[in-house]
Amino acid sequence: MNMENIEFVLPSEIEKRSFEIITKELEDMGKIIPDEEAPVTKRVIHTSADFEYADTLAYSENAIKIARDMIKNGAHIVTDTNMAMAGINKKRLATYGGEVHCFMADESVAKEAKERGVTRATVSMERAAELNVPIIFAIGNAPTALISLYEMMEKGIYRPEFVIGVPVGFVNVVAAKELFLQSDVPYIINRGRKGGSNIAAAIVNALVYGL
Amino acid sequence: MNMENIEFVLPSEIEKRSFEIITKELEDMGKIIPDEEAPVTKRVIHTSADFEYADTLAYSENAIKIARDMIKNGAHIVTDTNMAMAGINKKRLATYGGEVHCFMADESVAKEAKERGVTRATVSMERAAELNVPIIFAIGNAPTALISLYEMMEKGIYRPEFVIGVPVGFVNVVAAKELFLQSDVPYIINRGRKGGSNIAAAIVNALVYGL
Repeated sequence: MNMENIEFVLPSEIEKRSFEIITKELEDMGKIIPDEEAPVTKRVIHTSADFEYADTLAYSENAIKIARDMIKNGAHIVTDTNMAMAGINKKRLATYGGEVHCFMADESVAKEAKERGVTRATVSMERAAELNVPIIFAIGNAPTALISLYEMMEKGIYRPEFVIGVPVGFVNVVAAKELFLQSDVPYIINRGRKGGSNIAAAIVNALVYGL
Repeated sequence: MNMENIEFVLPSEIEKRSFEIITKELEDMGKIIPDEEAPVTKRVIHTSADFEYADTLAYSENAIKIARDMIKNGAHIVTDTNMAMAGINKKRLATYGGEVHCFMADESVAKEAKERGVTRATVSMERAAELNVPIIFAIGNAPTALISLYEMMEKGIYRPEFVIGVPVGFVNVVAAKELFLQSDVPYIINRGRKGGSNIAAAIVNALVYGL
């Protein structure tokens, strides 16, 4: 094994080629993805090399159009991880007026979470609810972020306009996603345990790139 | 489906509980992971909810000990993605004297890459080689970063001391990983297409947390 196995591909062509491979393999597997959702699902596969997402990503009715309209009108993104914030194309988002927020590293959030015996994600969502701007939530890590949003909704305190629900993990992740799959909040959610900050960022970027 | 399905777990217990579930499921699947490697492999599964990593993560001889000794002695981390840089516990790393570098967003890197018709990752690795400190490379995105390191090694310009090789994707990813699997550079590499910035960060953090 040496450099002979490395194929020369122009830097500008790598992403295009990757999407062609993904498209072909999805076809070979017989997986049909609606045209509107394909750019999002394919970008998630591009970022994970995991074709399982073709089966588990769930979109509420008109989710793509609703989210893109929000972004076009300047919606902000709130995420529960600094990694997702780092991965989101903030420059492109800013051309529509949007900003990305993550409150997880705020010292006051950590302090309040400790005092109340809740996660920082729980407090972060409460902070987001006070922002008073249209928000797309992009949850890539903490199921407690989804639970916090759901509880505020149940109590009539706050209602999220759009939820990208892709926390990853083993404790309450599946159940937290189900809360929103059963709600009437527009969503893009990955059923099951998988997800992550990279997936959250990929979904936001796919929405923005399609504008 | 409602809040009844949400289990109450103390925030401080969530990670511990997650690792218990991962350990049990690995046992149930009959997957044996050497004790030394288990904290790294399990943290990768924790960050991805993808048990396939138990089969595909490859460690060179004594990889964990070599990497941890380097960190203890103040090695720096160079990564090819800002997301991985955001995800690495820089505070803990700094207690040993280490810093994290990512040159991908440098304008001069972008400029040089464009002029030469190579990727920013290629140029970023060349910049890293000039740092003149012991480095653990944590490559979570670009196979061209691995190829760049390999080419410098072949030319006798630079030899990486340790490579975490977990780029993700469809173009040259498998072949770029093979270059290092066949070399005598100490490594932690995920065979195949999977990986990512979240995986790179998880591996670095597992190394640091074990010190």
